[in-house]
Amino acid sequence: MVEKGHPRYKSLKLREKILEAYHKGVLADAGIIAHGRGEAFDYLIGEKTRKPAARAIKAAAALLLLAKNPVLSVNGNTAALVPEEIVELARLLNAKIEINLFHRTPKRVKLIEKILKEAGAEEVLGTEDEKLKHLKGIKSPRATASPRGIYIADVVLVPLEDGDRAEVLKKAGKAIITVDLNPLSRTSQKADISITDNIVRAIPLLIKYVKKLKDYKKDELKKILEGFNNKKNLEYMLRLIDLQRMRKL
Amino acid sequence: MVEKGHPRYKSLKLREKILEAYHKGVLADAGIIAHGRGEAFDYLIGEKTRKPAARAIKAAAALLLLAKNPVLSVNGNTAALVPEEIVELARLLNAKIEINLFHRTPKRVKLIEKILKEAGAEEVLGTEDEKLKHLKGIKSPRATASPRGIYIADVVLVPLEDGDRAEVLKKAGKAIITVDLNPLSRTSQKADISITDNIVRAIPLLIKYVKKLKDYKKDELKKILEGFNNKKNLEYMLRLIDLQRMRKL
Repeated sequence: MVEKGHPRYKSLKLREKILEAYHKGVLADAGIIAHGRGEAFDYLIGEKTRKPAARAIKAAAALLLLAKNPVLSVNGNTAALVPEEIVELARLLNAKIEINLFHRTPKRVKLIEKILKEAGAEEVLGTEDEKLKHLKGIKSPRATASPRGIYIADVVLVPLEDGDRAEVLKKAGKAIITVDLNPLSRTSQKADISITDNIVRAIPLLIKYVKKLKDYKKDELKKILEGFNNKKNLEYMLRLIDLQRMRKL
Repeated sequence: MVEKGHPRYKSLKLREKILEAYHKGVLADAGIIAHGRGEAFDYLIGEKTRKPAARAIKAAAALLLLAKNPVLSVNGNTAALVPEEIVELARLLNAKIEINLFHRTPKRVKLIEKILKEAGAEEVLGTEDEKLKHLKGIKSPRATASPRGIYIADVVLVPLEDGDRAEVLKKAGKAIITVDLNPLSRTSQKADISITDNIVRAIPLLIKYVKKLKDYKKDELKKILEGFNNKKNLEYMLRLIDLQRMRKL
């Protein structure tokens, strides 16, 4: 329905995808509101991958390649926007894919599992068939984890995640990578690597970096990580947002 | 359902109101996405009325009091969030209330009319009972106006309005006041007075200013307007957003 010439064509196409997923029941109400928040932040960063985001993505590739048990955590918005990319990334990294939902219902889990399977996933963890464990014994729905996935993971990619969950994962000793358009969100502030970018741009670029760094030696990957400072990187990102905004005036 | 102690209590209560209206059919899909965008911008301005916004609200009160035919334009989000306040403001100003929807359907117009009537409105324009005119003869659904309302208005308050509509109103020679949390939006940039604030804070404060300035002489009201520069005011707002953001780090 959106015309190609529209100045906000890409943004409106994404919105259509999100709304379609919502009406199918893949997303909870909070998912579309969150998408709206994301639109605002994406607008403020200029709707493109800025340099600090690219640096974070490169570091994330290195960390994921160094991981023993990497897991990609998937929620409704991620499944709606980048299912094929998540499957490809998991394949490249030999990582597990695990569903984790804030507003978890058996129906929604089933729908997301179906989307991931249709996108080519061979195995999807965190479904209703599994008996989930609680990280650190925390009896919160935000602390559940598949015993074969996040429970034993050392590195977890948690795109579009909420602050409570990010905190639980950190407490459980996981290294976490997030994709979050708000550099000031609790999740961005808690994560080891915070990618301030739209997930539809970030995951494809992460795939590129994983392919590029795949044959690097461990030492070289570690060097990339040592050269990356997440706190500083988030500060650079904030400064860019300012410049971007002022330039448009 | 949201606990009072939650750091984002107010924001989450508003979200509940918006979702309730959405599920009743008052809002289109775009309305909830727009609310999400608003949440992000409100967060960036610190979720309070900043000084430039208060200045814009004061100027808006003066302009509305000087108007011959002021009209308050109401869409779904406005009706969901501040129906009583709109009715009170209209009464104080002797202004018309007119429904104008981007995603107009007879059902949605009826629902909003009902909300406004229940909030105490005696007359609501822009309903299905009227034969709407087209501003400047522009044959777009964004150009419709009630012949007794916006069509003959000199000053229109158009909160949460889209850029195309704002442009049409300007072309038709109206002075427009907007409430929009994005100081860079086309609407904010086009408006004569742009209030960068959350509508749930802006309209109550506008009511206060109208009450305060109600007995001022025309000359005094004009002086308030002359002392207000919308472009400069938007720049102040942008600078405040930066400071706010940096301070939180």
